Amino acid sequence: MSIRHYLQFKDFSADEYGYLLGRAAFIKAKFKAVEKYQPFADPDRTLAMIFEKASTRTRVSFEAGMYQMGGSVVHLTTGDSQLGRAEPIEDSARVISRMVDIVMIRTFGQDKIEKFAQYSRVPVINGLTNEFHPCQILADLFTLVEYRPAASGNPLDAIKGKVVAWVGDGNNMANTWLQAAELLGFTVHVSTPSGYEVDAQLAGISNPACYKVFSDPKEACQGADLVTTDVWTSMGYEAENEVRRAAFKQWCVDEAMMAVAKPDALFMHCLPAHRGEEVTAEVIDGPQSVVWDEAENRMHVQKALMEYLLLGKLA
Amino acid sequence: MSIRHYLQFKDFSADEYGYLLGRAAFIKAKFKAVEKYQPFADPDRTLAMIFEKASTRTRVSFEAGMYQMGGSVVHLTTGDSQLGRAEPIEDSARVISRMVDIVMIRTFGQDKIEKFAQYSRVPVINGLTNEFHPCQILADLFTLVEYRPAASGNPLDAIKGKVVAWVGDGNNMANTWLQAAELLGFTVHVSTPSGYEVDAQLAGISNPACYKVFSDPKEACQGADLVTTDVWTSMGYEAENEVRRAAFKQWCVDEAMMAVAKPDALFMHCLPAHRGEEVTAEVIDGPQSVVWDEAENRMHVQKALMEYLLLGKLA
Amino acid sequence: MSIRHYLQFKDFSADEYGYLLGRAAFIKAKFKAVEKYQPFADPDRTLAMIFEKASTRTRVSFEAGMYQMGGSVVHLTTGDSQLGRAEPIEDSARVISRMVDIVMIRTFGQDKIEKFAQYSRVPVINGLTNEFHPCQILADLFTLVEYRPAASGNPLDAIKGKVVAWVGDGNNMANTWLQAAELLGFTVHVSTPSGYEVDAQLAGISNPACYKVFSDPKEACQGADLVTTDVWTSMGYEAENEVRRAAFKQWCVDEAMMAVAKPDALFMHCLPAHRGEEVTAEVIDGPQSVVWDEAENRMHVQKALMEYLLLGKLA
Repeated sequence: MSIRHYLQFKDFSADEYGYLLGRAAFIKAKFKAVEKYQPFADPDRTLAMIFEKASTRTRVSFEAGMYQMGGSVVHLTTGDSQLGRAEPIEDSARVISRMVDIVMIRTFGQDKIEKFAQYSRVPVINGLTNEFHPCQILADLFTLVEYRPAASGNPLDAIKGKVVAWVGDGNNMANTWLQAAELLGFTVHVSTPSGYEVDAQLAGISNPACYKVFSDPKEACQGADLVTTDVWTSMGYEAENEVRRAAFKQWCVDEAMMAVAKPDALFMHCLPAHRGEEVTAEVIDGPQSVVWDEAENRMHVQKALMEYLLLGKLA
Repeated sequence: MSIRHYLQFKDFSADEYGYLLGRAAFIKAKFKAVEKYQPFADPDRTLAMIFEKASTRTRVSFEAGMYQMGGSVVHLTTGDSQLGRAEPIEDSARVISRMVDIVMIRTFGQDKIEKFAQYSRVPVINGLTNEFHPCQILADLFTLVEYRPAASGNPLDAIKGKVVAWVGDGNNMANTWLQAAELLGFTVHVSTPSGYEVDAQLAGISNPACYKVFSDPKEACQGADLVTTDVWTSMGYEAENEVRRAAFKQWCVDEAMMAVAKPDALFMHCLPAHRGEEVTAEVIDGPQSVVWDEAENRMHVQKALMEYLLLGKLA
Repeated sequence: MSIRHYLQFKDFSADEYGYLLGRAAFIKAKFKAVEKYQPFADPDRTLAMIFEKASTRTRVSFEAGMYQMGGSVVHLTTGDSQLGRAEPIEDSARVISRMVDIVMIRTFGQDKIEKFAQYSRVPVINGLTNEFHPCQILADLFTLVEYRPAASGNPLDAIKGKVVAWVGDGNNMANTWLQAAELLGFTVHVSTPSGYEVDAQLAGISNPACYKVFSDPKEACQGADLVTTDVWTSMGYEAENEVRRAAFKQWCVDEAMMAVAKPDALFMHCLPAHRGEEVTAEVIDGPQSVVWDEAENRMHVQKALMEYLLLGKLA
């Protein structure tokens, strides 16, 4: 069997997402019931996490999740691991993947993680790159299914046909939303400032019907089931901070935008949030916001993801 | 049941300290007998440690202690976690406390840890702030009971009525000694240089009889059961180093000070120690010094503390 | 029983190496069969790793290895642990060794690790010093035995009488090869640029027959069973980088050198490698190179080493 990796959202099929979303619900229920569920304990499975960009959420969600599943974690930061600096990425991949069972990488270019995976003996997970952030979109979809389940009980039915409004930077999150929409059959309404467009070509989108572009962010929110956004300046782009603040001024999710979405629309944000910039306090701290459950769900979907990559389908 | 935190010494009752001190003895005995005792293994309980100030002792004692109890640890430093910088402390507390079972924080202002606890879903432990250091005082009291037990076997009886001489900086340790003295019924003799006084108001002391202030450190040691001190310059005050060296010159615990204490008086120091500054080598390396047991006991009392916060009273 | 440490290769006897090499094979087989083998789980045994020099390989091999054996790890970097800076090494050793079961140190001077061991209550392992790197040589010997076993099945017979060519810097690796050769009865052919000689006196070599010095690196490779090298500039010597590049130009292991070694000679490198400097791509990526197995074997021999130091001979 060839090794499976999770580098882009489209690396998995719709069927596999149906399995993963159900599995995440099972694993989360164990956690909430304070029940032991440790498929990574015998023998011990070890996750290596390689961080070239700092992160609280990705760090804690992967690490605590691994411990809850009975496994172990080696946490490498750039200073320790020098991905591609002290030695070619190929060599790091060959060596590290001899010693651990699975690898999570948060880095800059998608090319780095693709190359690492190519030389790795064990599964590699994209914990965020400049181009994609599939774990976060998986968590967001799981949260959507949790709050708005389908009558059929099939999580994919809860997602199909929905409208997701993406307001703000056409970044790794936006690119990944496009891949998810095409694969799972929903529509993304994208509104970004000029010059910060989503990159459908990079995302490899072949069905242009999976997303619509709006110059007015409020129009993008019209009829949406889910309104979501991200900080104006992602990590690695801090030098553009002032230019971005000016360009993004109109792309602040506020109550007026939420008012034109569906009455039961949800608000999500992958955090950290800057209240008064990309979202008002009223919205993120309001009744439609599910950002804390969304954050916790990172951990549960990633546990399901690691279980699938390490042990295959169990149920 | 509302969540319990351990942010100041006075957060617990005398009864609770009686329980904790007995429990720490039980847990230490397991360790010394090389016997498995892992109440945090099923399910796995995870501790998040957030360090804004570096530390060897706090780091190793909490982390190794958690492993010995069968649990897991996520170690976050300021660079990773950016407490209050990248996002409001409230948001960090909400997110982190969704993913782990208990949180230890070593930071600057007590206000930061109080705010974190307010928004946390899980217990928060003060691993040192500028104002208080309750875990260290708990370790010191446990060490005192270990060396000078009461005939009754009740650890609180071993503490009641004792005289503790605090020589040096009126810092977080000194403030915490005052809280402990008032709660557990002993007396602190405090001698600090002028300008470095203990802050009884900050400590919330209502019974002024629980401590006495002496301008002469030797007088403070008169009749003491325990003489204890700390470095002249705590972390975060390095800029004052030269001024402090001049001010603290007389506040060096030496054999003359120990000679006026009780004949069986103990010497403690929370370490690291600077021989020739706050204490002479003769004293810290001498027969009355119990600093290595004191250091090890940090680990055992913290295991008891985490057990109580996570699982309640067990015996 | 006095505590055993592993600070230099000659700290163990030939008999002990025979046991360790056999034990590493047993432990590696468990890993390859994905079978649980956790002698450090009951009770939990904790390794403290102290890094004053960064490392991927040493970090991952010790940490993942410990997890596979059922134990735990506290990872301290210089910033956290300040070995000998904030407090005397003696004090750090006394405190840390009260809380954990075994300590691995990667530091600069051998004197630091010797002093730490002197004051430690638990075994201390040299994870690399400026003078010695015994864990790497142990891994290299295990790899040699794995590829070229003796008919007798005794690993020591596979090593005895062999010729190892060391090409390049007369560094900690070279010094350790000399100790191994004297102890286990093989010969090292050493060729270094002038001014970078191996230090037989530092290594404490009493039998000068255990190594031969060659000014021409190709002559050193003549008839060798194993050709091995290291980067021209080890960590801590970066300031000498330009001078070293000039001095080492002829000390690049290439196909011509491999051609004069035995036909079945192996090539090893402790990594990271700089292709085109100390070794050509043809050699390190060629059929005689066993560097990836060698890297993985660090982990397995270290698991055997920790098992022996913690639990003694088991079989």
